[in-house]
Amino acid sequence: MPLDQPVSASKPRHSAHFLAETAQVDQAAVTPLPGSRKVYVKGSRDDLRVPFREISLSATRTSGADEANPPLLVYDTSGPYTDPQVEVDLRRGLAELRRPWIEERDDTEWLDGPTSDYGRRRANDPTLAPLRFELTRTPRRARRGADGRAGNVTQLHYARRGIITPEMEFIAIRENQRRQALADGYRGSDEVERILGHQHPGQGFGARLPEEITPEFVRQEVAAGRAIIPANINHPEAEPMIIGRNFLVKINGNLGNSAVTSSIEQEVEKMTWGIRWGADTIMDLSTGQNIHETREWIIRNSPVPIGTVPLYQALEKVKGVAEDLTWEVFRDTLIEQAEQGVDYFTIHAGVLLRYVPLTANRVTGIVSRGGSIMAKWCLYHHQESFLYTHFEEICEICKQYDVAFSLGDGLRPGSVADANDEAQMAELKTLGELTRIAWKHDVQVMIEGPGHVPMHLVKENMDKQLEYCDEAPFYTLGPLVTDIAPGYDHITSGIGAAMIGWYGCAMLCYVTPKEHLGLPDKDDVKTGIITYKIAAHAADLAKGHPGAQRRDNALSKARFEFRWEDQFNLGLDPDTARAYHDETLPKDSAKVAHFCSMCGPKFCSMKISQEVRDYARDNGLEGDGDAVMAGMEERARVFREQGAELYKEV
Amino acid sequence: MPLDQPVSASKPRHSAHFLAETAQVDQAAVTPLPGSRKVYVKGSRDDLRVPFREISLSATRTSGADEANPPLLVYDTSGPYTDPQVEVDLRRGLAELRRPWIEERDDTEWLDGPTSDYGRRRANDPTLAPLRFELTRTPRRARRGADGRAGNVTQLHYARRGIITPEMEFIAIRENQRRQALADGYRGSDEVERILGHQHPGQGFGARLPEEITPEFVRQEVAAGRAIIPANINHPEAEPMIIGRNFLVKINGNLGNSAVTSSIEQEVEKMTWGIRWGADTIMDLSTGQNIHETREWIIRNSPVPIGTVPLYQALEKVKGVAEDLTWEVFRDTLIEQAEQGVDYFTIHAGVLLRYVPLTANRVTGIVSRGGSIMAKWCLYHHQESFLYTHFEEICEICKQYDVAFSLGDGLRPGSVADANDEAQMAELKTLGELTRIAWKHDVQVMIEGPGHVPMHLVKENMDKQLEYCDEAPFYTLGPLVTDIAPGYDHITSGIGAAMIGWYGCAMLCYVTPKEHLGLPDKDDVKTGIITYKIAAHAADLAKGHPGAQRRDNALSKARFEFRWEDQFNLGLDPDTARAYHDETLPKDSAKVAHFCSMCGPKFCSMKISQEVRDYARDNGLEGDGDAVMAGMEERARVFREQGAELYKEV
Repeated sequence: MPLDQPVSASKPRHSAHFLAETAQVDQAAVTPLPGSRKVYVKGSRDDLRVPFREISLSATRTSGADEANPPLLVYDTSGPYTDPQVEVDLRRGLAELRRPWIEERDDTEWLDGPTSDYGRRRANDPTLAPLRFELTRTPRRARRGADGRAGNVTQLHYARRGIITPEMEFIAIRENQRRQALADGYRGSDEVERILGHQHPGQGFGARLPEEITPEFVRQEVAAGRAIIPANINHPEAEPMIIGRNFLVKINGNLGNSAVTSSIEQEVEKMTWGIRWGADTIMDLSTGQNIHETREWIIRNSPVPIGTVPLYQALEKVKGVAEDLTWEVFRDTLIEQAEQGVDYFTIHAGVLLRYVPLTANRVTGIVSRGGSIMAKWCLYHHQESFLYTHFEEICEICKQYDVAFSLGDGLRPGSVADANDEAQMAELKTLGELTRIAWKHDVQVMIEGPGHVPMHLVKENMDKQLEYCDEAPFYTLGPLVTDIAPGYDHITSGIGAAMIGWYGCAMLCYVTPKEHLGLPDKDDVKTGIITYKIAAHAADLAKGHPGAQRRDNALSKARFEFRWEDQFNLGLDPDTARAYHDETLPKDSAKVAHFCSMCGPKFCSMKISQEVRDYARDNGLEGDGDAVMAGMEERARVFREQGAELYKEV
Repeated sequence: MPLDQPVSASKPRHSAHFLAETAQVDQAAVTPLPGSRKVYVKGSRDDLRVPFREISLSATRTSGADEANPPLLVYDTSGPYTDPQVEVDLRRGLAELRRPWIEERDDTEWLDGPTSDYGRRRANDPTLAPLRFELTRTPRRARRGADGRAGNVTQLHYARRGIITPEMEFIAIRENQRRQALADGYRGSDEVERILGHQHPGQGFGARLPEEITPEFVRQEVAAGRAIIPANINHPEAEPMIIGRNFLVKINGNLGNSAVTSSIEQEVEKMTWGIRWGADTIMDLSTGQNIHETREWIIRNSPVPIGTVPLYQALEKVKGVAEDLTWEVFRDTLIEQAEQGVDYFTIHAGVLLRYVPLTANRVTGIVSRGGSIMAKWCLYHHQESFLYTHFEEICEICKQYDVAFSLGDGLRPGSVADANDEAQMAELKTLGELTRIAWKHDVQVMIEGPGHVPMHLVKENMDKQLEYCDEAPFYTLGPLVTDIAPGYDHITSGIGAAMIGWYGCAMLCYVTPKEHLGLPDKDDVKTGIITYKIAAHAADLAKGHPGAQRRDNALSKARFEFRWEDQFNLGLDPDTARAYHDETLPKDSAKVAHFCSMCGPKFCSMKISQEVRDYARDNGLEGDGDAVMAGMEERARVFREQGAELYKEV
């Protein structure tokens, strides 16, 4: 029998609600990663400092002098949390990095306070005081023009006018893996660079990946609509980042409480935990109580862009009755969230009335929450949704705060059987039409994608998206390449995510092991993030992103040289790698041993291989085989006669 | 400083050695999987009974009569362990399923005892009694012909003579997903079959996947060398299985103790645990003490083929000094293992002297243990290895027991930098030459493959392997698509494995989370197996293997209908799925609730979507949108006027 009421979780993890006075940052999120420190690369102005993580490495021990291994710079999403110079206080929020840039543009104005009805109501409700983040500033909005028309403060608007914003310059430095690798202090000897600098030519399927990413290149990509910079003027705490197929592949981590479980404090912890491991953006999908207050805490403390699905909150406002939703309620929600600083909105405006019956014969119908809500609304009212009919008004709102669209795939397939079907493709075409409308308003757009798709149908998704949506960035959930592994859908989807990232998808929305089964806890968030970092990086390698292979090379070099600590620290998750190693060989001495627990000392292929290499090198046998083999026999004979110790002991 | 002696694991998990008198089967391995029972499909003779797992499903509740969901048959590698009718006693080993078939062929003879020196020595060593499996029979070998020449008992030999063996018929029934799905008792109503029977046309890259797999098709594939049946006549306990690109993609699980850790008992447990979750073959890679005895326990209790790398044991026999290896020691080891019943041998015969210098400039040199041992041997002696020079004699041994070759990729890349390089491709060509030599002797062959390969270079591996090795089955380790995630290499490699399986790889060798870091424990074995079952199944789906999608459809149907127990039981790991679900919604009532913890009752997309579907169905709105939309408005108006309860409550 279906239950009418939410059931409670059996083990609530926090007995009391999160309180504004006692909020504390998760200590696990502020410890620097092992062997790492935060460094900043300065741009053209003093307040443009781009953060990286620098992983320091030990020297390679050789029979002669030790050979230094240069530190590695890696892209860092963790924000000020991993900078010991910064004292993080969740109650105050992060510093307003972008405030001077926004103010210099001189095209915005402070509002007296929230302009949404709901935002005002929450601000004035004294019972919410214990939950409320104490924001000391009011929202900002685009200043109206002399003609009284709303202004436009989107990065796309600037890009099309030829303006290179500080955000664009920040991004250029941040994305420049190749250039940073070759900067002073990050270069090794010629021999070390031969190894670190190797990179296979990639297969980009039309991606354009220049050796050096310039601010002008960033501007051009944004202007063309091929990339977006989600950067609401009310989220000045965020470090600029870009989503587009000609840049590094990004990943998103979802969090959010539901009616059933979870507290504000847990959600903020999941955010700081998610960015520590590499989430490029975070979506707050809360559907439970106090959505507004939860979101404020998250945004004020997030150095990465925050996305939402405003429909979820709008539905809460009409007590969960889909057919009671109205444009007015929805509009007020958009303004409420835009004034809080949400950087991108998922809008399911592509669910048209005539597409709904196309889902009736599916195995899993409509699995998108937003899509199903809108389908119900459309059927009930027998008209197109207010998202579709009011789309230009939504654009008007977005452009005044620079909220980007993430056009939702409300009809995405929820099973491999439903992949690439008529309903899905019909909606995708409509998303293309909406993209062109948004661009008319200089509003940034990306497109959401499936879902569940068997491997051989993945590429069609990417190709059709590029075709229908004029190369607007694609942002996909997985896709899951099979339905049969609940409990492991981070893996079923990680396979599809890596592939579609290679084919050109710009951002991959993570899936955790709890997908289809429950809400993720912190462990699940980490597992999902690491899985998706793997997928995104594998895609960068396959596309041939300049400099992407350097980290692989550095790690493999460390592995081959038995620099265990370096191997751990260069990995995506040093803690887990170290713990696994220590399960069998916990002694510190084992970490400098020239073997490991897998083979033991006698069978170690790495050790033998080192010997072979040393032998070849010492005897001038490098390079192509045939040419050097002639001299080998004599040398072998001499060494044989000198006794069994042919191979150098390191 | 490198250590000279093996170090001990800090926490030995078994204080005493495994004893022949007290050996007990792991209870976790003999419990039937939830909702499942073992069933057998009989072939053309009474002793040909092909095991399957039957997953029973609950009915779909509708507003009318409940609709039955037929049980699903799935391929089952777990052998007699999950059959409650069979009493498993590790000390006696499994029943000799294939004995009558082998004897009927009347081409083998009993030996008086082991014919290898080493096998005799171990059999006669009284101190080994507590460790020894008490085998009551002697080894079997091909009977010599009237001309005194060795006989040939390989499945390839029979296949080429047009003989369909019981093994081939067994395999045909086992592989026939489509046919079994349509058998009596496994069909649903027409509407249920519409959902369960849906399958996307696949993209097979040249695979030939008939709707029905006949015994004759199996014979043809074996005769052509495109598939192998690893089935040593001294392993009559094994249930026949096939490895070839025109069959279901298979997976292998590795186990094995090392000098550093692990006991016999643990290894047997890992085997029974691995086959429970789906390992199609098991490789015993032990390098520590008592390799011979460990292997005997594993083979006698294994219903799946067992592979080994005989070189590891040969090296133990010469105290770990690679250059002391001789053909005589190696030959004796082959016979020792063949007479125990090893079903396939990894032989690194493709490591030629002239290829060794090609690895000197690699980032990670030679990472294959076998490859590095042989490289060292070749360099030291400055001659081609005894594996290469005595290859025809190895064939002579293999054909008398039907041991298949798994030609080892000793020069596989150990980092993405080294992928697809000259050394790797040179060796692959040599493996092709060796394949043709083995085929001359009617010895079955598969080819091992890499390794570490970025995504865009994976397909070249498959294409070159098919070209150089004349379509002999490919058997790859991963490949890992990036090097940067130690601790998660089941995932980095699962991505590559799924892709290469799609492209045509016949068997995928699993990688566990401990890869590069330590030896896997039971949890790691399970994680590796499930990850690889995902990869293999995703590949079957993408290739379009007839019937492969039925399990996805059945699970997705259960998911959509909130049949939680069915969803768990249809998954690859019911225990984990159930546990994850119960973390948030543990009450039994939640398992029949029409929502879950992710969205709560109001936001449940599945629930709303069901309502949409019901509405569409009740109003004749199925199928294409435009045609049926005309009548919708009037219906919507009528329903609206009847009040808010438009949508049927289930």
